[in-house]
Amino acid sequence: MIYADNAATTKMSDLALDTMFSIMKEGWGNPSSLYSHGQKAKEILEKAREDVAGLIGATPREIVFTSGGSEADNQAIRSAAEAGRAKGKMHIVSSAFEHHAVLHTLEALKKEGFKITLLDVHENGIVDPSEVMEAIRDDTCLVTIMYANNEIGTVQPIREIGAICRARKVLFHTDAVQAIGHIPVNVVDDNIDLLSASAHKFHGPKGTGFLYAKKGVKLTNLIEGGAQERGKRAGTENVPGIAAMAAALKESISSMPENAAHMAIMRDRLIRGLKQIPHSALNGDETKRLPGNVNFCFEGIEGESLLLLLDDKGICASSGSACTSGSLDPSHVLLAIGRVHDVAHGSLRLSIGEDVTEAEIDSIIRAVGEVVEYLRGFSPIWRDLMAGKKKFIL
Amino acid sequence: MIYADNAATTKMSDLALDTMFSIMKEGWGNPSSLYSHGQKAKEILEKAREDVAGLIGATPREIVFTSGGSEADNQAIRSAAEAGRAKGKMHIVSSAFEHHAVLHTLEALKKEGFKITLLDVHENGIVDPSEVMEAIRDDTCLVTIMYANNEIGTVQPIREIGAICRARKVLFHTDAVQAIGHIPVNVVDDNIDLLSASAHKFHGPKGTGFLYAKKGVKLTNLIEGGAQERGKRAGTENVPGIAAMAAALKESISSMPENAAHMAIMRDRLIRGLKQIPHSALNGDETKRLPGNVNFCFEGIEGESLLLLLDDKGICASSGSACTSGSLDPSHVLLAIGRVHDVAHGSLRLSIGEDVTEAEIDSIIRAVGEVVEYLRGFSPIWRDLMAGKKKFIL
Repeated sequence: MIYADNAATTKMSDLALDTMFSIMKEGWGNPSSLYSHGQKAKEILEKAREDVAGLIGATPREIVFTSGGSEADNQAIRSAAEAGRAKGKMHIVSSAFEHHAVLHTLEALKKEGFKITLLDVHENGIVDPSEVMEAIRDDTCLVTIMYANNEIGTVQPIREIGAICRARKVLFHTDAVQAIGHIPVNVVDDNIDLLSASAHKFHGPKGTGFLYAKKGVKLTNLIEGGAQERGKRAGTENVPGIAAMAAALKESISSMPENAAHMAIMRDRLIRGLKQIPHSALNGDETKRLPGNVNFCFEGIEGESLLLLLDDKGICASSGSACTSGSLDPSHVLLAIGRVHDVAHGSLRLSIGEDVTEAEIDSIIRAVGEVVEYLRGFSPIWRDLMAGKKKFIL
Repeated sequence: MIYADNAATTKMSDLALDTMFSIMKEGWGNPSSLYSHGQKAKEILEKAREDVAGLIGATPREIVFTSGGSEADNQAIRSAAEAGRAKGKMHIVSSAFEHHAVLHTLEALKKEGFKITLLDVHENGIVDPSEVMEAIRDDTCLVTIMYANNEIGTVQPIREIGAICRARKVLFHTDAVQAIGHIPVNVVDDNIDLLSASAHKFHGPKGTGFLYAKKGVKLTNLIEGGAQERGKRAGTENVPGIAAMAAALKESISSMPENAAHMAIMRDRLIRGLKQIPHSALNGDETKRLPGNVNFCFEGIEGESLLLLLDDKGICASSGSACTSGSLDPSHVLLAIGRVHDVAHGSLRLSIGEDVTEAEIDSIIRAVGEVVEYLRGFSPIWRDLMAGKKKFIL
């Protein structure tokens, strides 16, 4: 199996697995309990908080552990919105290609009377900071722009956007689920007030993530109850999962320079190879993208058939976000960068891992080429294109 | 170590650990992915849903996996409240000794205009169904009463309360976090519309739980985003944790008859032993309680010192809920059953496990007796009591 869907989820690292299991076996106490078995769990929890905080330039008190990235996104946006509402500031700036955890939360807020401006992400899939500047109004309470897009991998000018928000005294949230552990992220240097992350995207376990909230940023609870997480997130802490997340993050960040360099070379080889397929196009900026992300559109085919045939050849890939798979609508991300419906339907996301080899890249290129050709062989759209009844777009 | 705090958290069973570990190693795909590696994870997820549903008398479509009991409580109550609000029904009936995940959610709803009636739980720690009947009004949208109390272990007349709610066409939610896996729970027989559960209370992993919502009960999302859990709970599913939860629940329920019988004998031995300590009293009904729960008040001492000295003797226990430990306020549960502040402060919860032995029970009795005597030796309250300056209550 060649696993090229690391943006959907990653395999846990051996270190993360070992950490998780040793704590489940030995450090399984409730960290809120006073006896030493509980306090041992508390120490593990607080050490994980220190580690996670240190790895992104935050302080431990600025980290709230959550069940994952979606929960963190929801809590970050809800918190900024409630703070805004209290001051009569009910305008939020975001972009058209955010993750649904952001967009659907914004839709819910819209129903409550918030005004939402979704910025264009242009053909290259990158938000223009000057457009953020123009979009901010006196009643803007939040700007939320993702660090790197989950489908096309384009990395946003977060530092510049953060600086603009800070100058305008508007809270800035970034969904960094795809970025953390893959490219350098520092909340201080990047002028970030709120940040969301998910462990299973960087070889940590599923079911855990975190929210960074800069000191002074007031959080609203999504989950009310016990006094865990300094009263900001109720529920017994998933200590084994949290410790495994911290271990995975430490590992990902310490090996990032070599990994990212290798992956970028592999990514570019994959891009070069896939460009040889006629009537294909890379989605998103060619260089300002995650080291592991390749996303193409192939004219005249259906993404879903492509995936199933690649699966037959042992290659795991996706057409876009796993969170929306099964949906018949084309990707909102591809529509946002200007792909028309027909073309957006023929998309392929390959998110390679750190240990991908040149031979695997070449296998992928060969397999995709064969499958695209095969599918076009009985595609009515392709027939129309070849017969000149329809015009090629790519 | 004698671990007598199973109400706070339990050790994972070997089966749950093995299940989790094997899925993390082999079945780690994203269940939303179309390729076979993802579909394998999907199958594991749906098998777990079938198992969990079957074990409580529900159907798979009625189960939503959550990050734990607190999240499930919040979502259940929020959902019923939003449905009520839409119909102008903004009254909720609950009890004074619910878990904070329930009480704090109700407090938040109160700020939004909901009216909350908290029923008395009487000296025995049991809600009277006739008082539920009386409390229901034309504008009542929800009754939420826990299945078994987390501090004093008293089991509530859920079936009767459920029948009353059904007759009055009011939604009925029960926080069954302490009950599931320990005593029989069947959502059909018990007339339950919404139920919350947490895996780590029945030897499953931390960070996972579920919400049962009867077919036709509309859920409001706490976490917006992807289409997971039929659109009711966004975020990549924690498949390994969910499968481990299902395995642990199956195991707990299949061995419940023997385990509960053994634990009840051990519990009663412990109660008899601790009653020998002068000026002590059992909290909550002596028989209508969880098979593993013992909760005492000892006059003239501080619960926290008691716990720390028991810890020195290798016994893990708590004064009440782990979720509120560190708080200086006496337990709201003990106040609700009529204990005065001074007495409530001297509380001890011992929640024994399935494998507890007679020798361990006797060790606990001996240790508690010694520690209580030792602490009373330099307690100013005890001196006043003995000098007749204060009157004994117990």
